[in-house]
Amino acid sequence: MKALSFNGPGKYSWQDKANPQLQYPTDVIVRISRTTICGTDLHILKGDVPTVEAGRTLGHEGVGVIVEKGQAVANFGVGDRVLISCITSCGRCDYCRRQMYSHCKDGGWILGHRIDGTQAEYVRIPYADTSLYLAPQGIDEEALVMLSDIFPTGFECGVLNGAVKPGDAVAIVGAGPIGLASLITARLYSPTMTIMVDVDEQRLTISKQFGASHTVNSQSSNPVELIMQLTQGVGVDVAMEAVGIPDTFDICQQVVAPGGHVANIGVHGKPVSLRLDKLWDRNVTITTRLVDTFTTPMLLKAVVSGAIDPKKIVTHRFELNEMLKAYDTFGHAAREHALKVVLRNEQ
Amino acid sequence: MKALSFNGPGKYSWQDKANPQLQYPTDVIVRISRTTICGTDLHILKGDVPTVEAGRTLGHEGVGVIVEKGQAVANFGVGDRVLISCITSCGRCDYCRRQMYSHCKDGGWILGHRIDGTQAEYVRIPYADTSLYLAPQGIDEEALVMLSDIFPTGFECGVLNGAVKPGDAVAIVGAGPIGLASLITARLYSPTMTIMVDVDEQRLTISKQFGASHTVNSQSSNPVELIMQLTQGVGVDVAMEAVGIPDTFDICQQVVAPGGHVANIGVHGKPVSLRLDKLWDRNVTITTRLVDTFTTPMLLKAVVSGAIDPKKIVTHRFELNEMLKAYDTFGHAAREHALKVVLRNEQ
Amino acid sequence: MKALSFNGPGKYSWQDKANPQLQYPTDVIVRISRTTICGTDLHILKGDVPTVEAGRTLGHEGVGVIVEKGQAVANFGVGDRVLISCITSCGRCDYCRRQMYSHCKDGGWILGHRIDGTQAEYVRIPYADTSLYLAPQGIDEEALVMLSDIFPTGFECGVLNGAVKPGDAVAIVGAGPIGLASLITARLYSPTMTIMVDVDEQRLTISKQFGASHTVNSQSSNPVELIMQLTQGVGVDVAMEAVGIPDTFDICQQVVAPGGHVANIGVHGKPVSLRLDKLWDRNVTITTRLVDTFTTPMLLKAVVSGAIDPKKIVTHRFELNEMLKAYDTFGHAAREHALKVVLRNEQ
Amino acid sequence: MKALSFNGPGKYSWQDKANPQLQYPTDVIVRISRTTICGTDLHILKGDVPTVEAGRTLGHEGVGVIVEKGQAVANFGVGDRVLISCITSCGRCDYCRRQMYSHCKDGGWILGHRIDGTQAEYVRIPYADTSLYLAPQGIDEEALVMLSDIFPTGFECGVLNGAVKPGDAVAIVGAGPIGLASLITARLYSPTMTIMVDVDEQRLTISKQFGASHTVNSQSSNPVELIMQLTQGVGVDVAMEAVGIPDTFDICQQVVAPGGHVANIGVHGKPVSLRLDKLWDRNVTITTRLVDTFTTPMLLKAVVSGAIDPKKIVTHRFELNEMLKAYDTFGHAAREHALKVVLRNEQ
Repeated sequence: MKALSFNGPGKYSWQDKANPQLQYPTDVIVRISRTTICGTDLHILKGDVPTVEAGRTLGHEGVGVIVEKGQAVANFGVGDRVLISCITSCGRCDYCRRQMYSHCKDGGWILGHRIDGTQAEYVRIPYADTSLYLAPQGIDEEALVMLSDIFPTGFECGVLNGAVKPGDAVAIVGAGPIGLASLITARLYSPTMTIMVDVDEQRLTISKQFGASHTVNSQSSNPVELIMQLTQGVGVDVAMEAVGIPDTFDICQQVVAPGGHVANIGVHGKPVSLRLDKLWDRNVTITTRLVDTFTTPMLLKAVVSGAIDPKKIVTHRFELNEMLKAYDTFGHAAREHALKVVLRNEQ
Repeated sequence: MKALSFNGPGKYSWQDKANPQLQYPTDVIVRISRTTICGTDLHILKGDVPTVEAGRTLGHEGVGVIVEKGQAVANFGVGDRVLISCITSCGRCDYCRRQMYSHCKDGGWILGHRIDGTQAEYVRIPYADTSLYLAPQGIDEEALVMLSDIFPTGFECGVLNGAVKPGDAVAIVGAGPIGLASLITARLYSPTMTIMVDVDEQRLTISKQFGASHTVNSQSSNPVELIMQLTQGVGVDVAMEAVGIPDTFDICQQVVAPGGHVANIGVHGKPVSLRLDKLWDRNVTITTRLVDTFTTPMLLKAVVSGAIDPKKIVTHRFELNEMLKAYDTFGHAAREHALKVVLRNEQ
Repeated sequence: MKALSFNGPGKYSWQDKANPQLQYPTDVIVRISRTTICGTDLHILKGDVPTVEAGRTLGHEGVGVIVEKGQAVANFGVGDRVLISCITSCGRCDYCRRQMYSHCKDGGWILGHRIDGTQAEYVRIPYADTSLYLAPQGIDEEALVMLSDIFPTGFECGVLNGAVKPGDAVAIVGAGPIGLASLITARLYSPTMTIMVDVDEQRLTISKQFGASHTVNSQSSNPVELIMQLTQGVGVDVAMEAVGIPDTFDICQQVVAPGGHVANIGVHGKPVSLRLDKLWDRNVTITTRLVDTFTTPMLLKAVVSGAIDPKKIVTHRFELNEMLKAYDTFGHAAREHALKVVLRNEQ
Repeated sequence: MKALSFNGPGKYSWQDKANPQLQYPTDVIVRISRTTICGTDLHILKGDVPTVEAGRTLGHEGVGVIVEKGQAVANFGVGDRVLISCITSCGRCDYCRRQMYSHCKDGGWILGHRIDGTQAEYVRIPYADTSLYLAPQGIDEEALVMLSDIFPTGFECGVLNGAVKPGDAVAIVGAGPIGLASLITARLYSPTMTIMVDVDEQRLTISKQFGASHTVNSQSSNPVELIMQLTQGVGVDVAMEAVGIPDTFDICQQVVAPGGHVANIGVHGKPVSLRLDKLWDRNVTITTRLVDTFTTPMLLKAVVSGAIDPKKIVTHRFELNEMLKAYDTFGHAAREHALKVVLRNEQ
C-alpha cells in the first residue's frame, strides 16, 4: 500500500509500505476512506517531536471501513464504517476508567506517533472497541473526519475546560482550525459574546461567517485593550489559547475577568510567564488538556442533528494519492487560505 | 481609643485615635475583644501595599461585641457577639450576588486597608448584615478569630479550589498559619496522603501533630523528587501553594499528577514561570483566589461540632495593649516559633 | 389608582385603591408600564391559595419606572426603568446568601400573595436593590415582562435542574407558557431532541415553530410508548413536568432514561405515585424547585444578544384598564388560543 | 465443588456442583477465600427476584485468588488476590464508558443473579480486567469483602448521590449494614450532624459506636418530629433511605430541608407516595441508584490509609462449609444481633 512516511527531520515521502497486520485480538484493520493533516504532523516533519521515529506512517485522523478484525473485538464487524479517534483507549486502565483516555497507559496519542497512522491506505487500530465510533448513517465523511481530533479538542480543551455557559463573553485567541472548532462548539452553550483574535484577516472574516460576534486583529491593534473595551473593562468569562506561544497565552491572562477561565488548547514548546502578581487575587482558573475524545458520541449526535456542521472547516480536497500536494497546501495555509484539507480514497 | 497606626513605610505606633463613628445606616461599631496579626500586615508595614495610606489603622481579623448599630442593620443588635470577616460584602452587587464577595464593588478586603481596621479598641464595620457572623454560644473566641481570615482562606483558596476529595494525595507547600489551616480543613475531605513542605523543621513537626501523613524539608532535600517517590511517580492530586514565591509555585507545578489541581493561595509579588511546555497535555487545573469567606457559616458549624479546632494554631497570647510586643513576636515568627498570635481585650 | 383586587374565592374586581407608600428604607415605588397574568393568579381567584387574603392586589410580574425610592436603596434611582422579579430577596439571610432567593426569610414569592402586587398602576417593591433589575436599553418591554417569572422558572426549574446538555434528548410535558419557556431556554444548551407533549394541537403546532424537534399529543396517542420509540427504547435524558398533576408526572417518570433527570416545574395540589419499584436501580434524579430568579441577569443578556426571544410567547395585548377582559381571555386560554397576555400602561 | 444453590422459591442447599470453566477470553476463575451474604440473597430465596432461575449459585460479594485466566485478561495474573465487584463491567459499552457500570449492556448485577455467583468454592468472573480489583498488600480480607457491595453502595447511592459535604446535617433511615456503611462513608465528608433512625435499639447503639451524633428509634418515637427538633425546624441537608419501604421513604421526604437531598438506597418492591404538593417548591433533589462501584479504587485507598474500617461491620464468622448456618444467622439478624457474616475458605 501507499503511505506517508516520516523519514527523519525534513524528510518524508508518499511511498510503498507493507500492509498493516492484526497484532492483538483487540485490533482491527481499517481501509482509510478519508484522512486529513494536522498541525502536529507539520511539527513532526520539522523534527519537533523526537518521540516519532524515522519510518513512521503519520496521521491520527481518519474515517474508513473495517476490513479485518481480531477475535476479541465485540462492538464492530468487518464492513462497518468507522470514525477513528486520535486517542487510543484500552478501556481498562485507571485513566480510561475515569474517562481520561488521553493518558491511557497503553494508548493515548499513539497513532502516527508511536505506531503507524492514518495517512495511508490501511491502518491498524489497537483497542478497536474503545477507540472507534460507528459512523452514523448518511453523514458526510468529511464532517466525520473533523471529529477525529479537532472538534473534540476544541470542545473538551476549550469549551468544557473553559466552562462556557449561556450568556458568557468568550475570547478565542487563534482562528485556525482548532480555534474555529472551539468557536463552533462554544456556540452549543449560547455565549452572548464570542471574540476571535488572529493576525490573519481572512481567518477573522471566516470567524464572522462561523458566528463570531466580534473579531480582533492582534497585529493591527492592541487586542487586550480592545477586548477590555468590548467588555466594559471587565474582561471575558472564558479566554481560550489556541496557538501555543507565550504571546497568545499572555493575551488570555490579561483579558480574563475575575472569576473567569483561561483554557489552554495550544501545544507549547516553552514555558510562559504567568502573571501571578496580578492574578493571585482574581479567582481565575487556568486549565490544560490533551483531548480525551470522551465527547465524541455527543459530537456525533450534534452533527446528525445539524447542531454543528464541521464540514465547513474543510477548504481543500485531494485524492489520497495527492498526499504530497495536500501537505504542500496545508503547509502554506496562509498563502493557500487553507483551514483543513481532506484526502479521499473512494473504492 | 488605642489603635495600631501605620504611619508610612517602616513606621507604626500603638497610639490614641478618635473612636470610630457610624457613617452609613448599614454600619455597626464593634468593641474588639480578640484580634490577631496577619502576614499581610507585615507587608503593609514594609510599604509593599501602596494602597494603604499613612494613618490607617491596620487589622482585618477580629471578634467583638456590637456597641452601636445603624438603622438599616437587621441581622444584629447591640450586645451581639460577632465574628468579623476579613471581607466586606455589600450583598447587592453582581459579585456578592454570586458569592464572590472578594470582588464586592463596595467592599472586598477593605478593613485595615482602605478603611480603619480591627487592631484597635473599636472598629466600624460597613455592611454589617452581610459582613459579620453571630458568634455561636460557648465557643472560645480564640478559635473564632482564626475564622476571620486564615481558615476560610485555606479552605476556599486551597481545599475547595483544589477540589480535595476522599482518597486524594495532597501536597501543601508552606506550613505557616495558612498552610496549616489548609491542612486542617483539607482533612474534612479525608485525603489519604497529606504532604507538608517547608524549610522550617519546627513547622513540619507541628504539621505532623496536625495530622500530616508526610513532611518534606525543602531545604535539606529535593521536594519534587521526594513527593514523586511518595506517590510512585504519579504526583499528587492537589498541590497547594501557600507561600507566594516562584520557587514554591514551581514545586507545585512539578508534582501535580495528570488530571490534578494546583491551588494557589500565596500572595505573589512577581510573575512565575509556568511550564506549559510540560503541562499543556497534562490535564491540570491551576486556580487563584482571594478568599470570599462564603464558607464561614460552614466553618462555624465545624468548630461547634469539633470537626476542626482552629485554636491550636494560636501559639502566643497578648493583651491588646501589648500590640507592639505582639508585632515583634509575629514579625520574628521563626525565632519565636510563632504561628498565630492573639490579642485579648477583656471588659 | 386602579388595581386588580382579589376579594375572596371567586370574587375580584378592577377597582380604586390607595396608592402604595414607601414603608421601609429599602423599598421603591414602581409605576407599572407592563404586567401580565400567571396561571397562579387564576388559582388564587378560585381560592386554591389560602395564604392570599381578601383585598390583596394580585400580580407578581411587571416592568415599570421607579417613581419613589427609600433612603437605603443604592442600585437604582428615580426614573430608572426596571424589571420586577417575582421573587423578593432580602440579600442578607442564609438562603439569599446562597442564591436560593425563593426561600428568602423575609421575601420569596410575596408579591400579589402576601403583599400587594403588580396588577395595578403602582406597586411597592421591598428590598429593591436585590429584587429589581435595570432594564437594558432598547429592549421591548413585552420581552422583559416575560423575565419576571416564566423564563427564569422554565430555565431554572426545568433546564438547570434537569441539567440539559448538548446532545440530550429532552421531553417537556405541558406546552403552556412555562413549558414553552422551558423549550426555548433548553435550546440554549443545544439538545438534539426536544419532544413537546400536550393535549392541545395548537400548542403543539406552536412548539414546532419554537423549535421542538418532535411533538406528541398525549390525548390521541400513548405518549410513553411514542417517546420510547423516538428514543430507541432508551428514554430521554431529561423529562420536565410543566403541568402539575399526577398523570403528567407519571409520563415523566416512565420515559426517563437510566441516569436521566426528571425536573418538576408544575405546581402540584396533591401527592403523586413515585414508581420506586421501577426506578430504585435506574440512577435517576428528580428535582423540585420554586424559581430563585438568580439567572435573570444571564437571561437579560440572552435577550439583548438575541439568543432568546421571549416576546413570541405573548399572544394578546390589552390596555391596563382592560384588566378584566385580559383575565377573561387568559382564563379561557384554550378557547382563545392564548399563551401570555400583556397589559400596557403607557404614560 | 460445593456451592449454595437456589432451587426455586423457599428451596436452597449447599451442594456439589461442577467447577466453573472459562467461557470467554476475558474471564477468570477465582477460588473464593472470603464471601458473605446480602439481604438481596434472602429476597431471592423467598422468590422475590423472578429473574433468578432455579439452579443458580447465589452470591455477588467475594475475595479470592485467580486460579485460571482467559487469554485476553491483561490486568491480572494467576495467583493474584482480588476483590470481586458485585457489578460486572464490560468496559466498552456506552454505560461503562461513562462510569455507569450498573447498567453495563453485558454486565451490571449478574453474579448470583443471571450467572453463578460467589457463594461457592470457585466462581467464573467475566470481564475480569474491568470487574476485579487487586487486593492491596496486608489488608484483612474481611475488610475487603465489605467492598464488594455494601461500602460502594452506601457511598455512591447514599453519600455521593446525597452530595454530603462538610457541615451538613445527615439523617440515615435504616441502621442495617448498608445504612451503617453509609454512615461510615458519609463521615469521610465531615458532616456535623449524623442522625441514625431504626427500630432496633441494638443497631442504634452500634450506630453511636460508629460515630453517629444522634439516634432516633422510629418505633418508640415520632422520627419526623424529633429530627425537625434536632435541626431547629429546618430539616436535614441529606436524608438517606436505607430500608426500601414506603414508610421509611416517607420519613426522608418529610425531614429534608429546602435545598436538600433525599438519596434512596433501598430496594423497593412497590411505589411510594411522593408528597409533591409539599415538595414542589422546596428545591429538593431525590435520587435513585444501583451501585456502579466506580469508587472502589478510592475506597480501597481509604481502607489502606485507615480512613474507614469496614471490618467492624462484620459480626459473625463461619467456615465456607457452614454456609447454611451462616444463612440461618443472617436470616435472623435481629435475633442474632447480626450485621454482616463472613464465610472463610482458607487453603
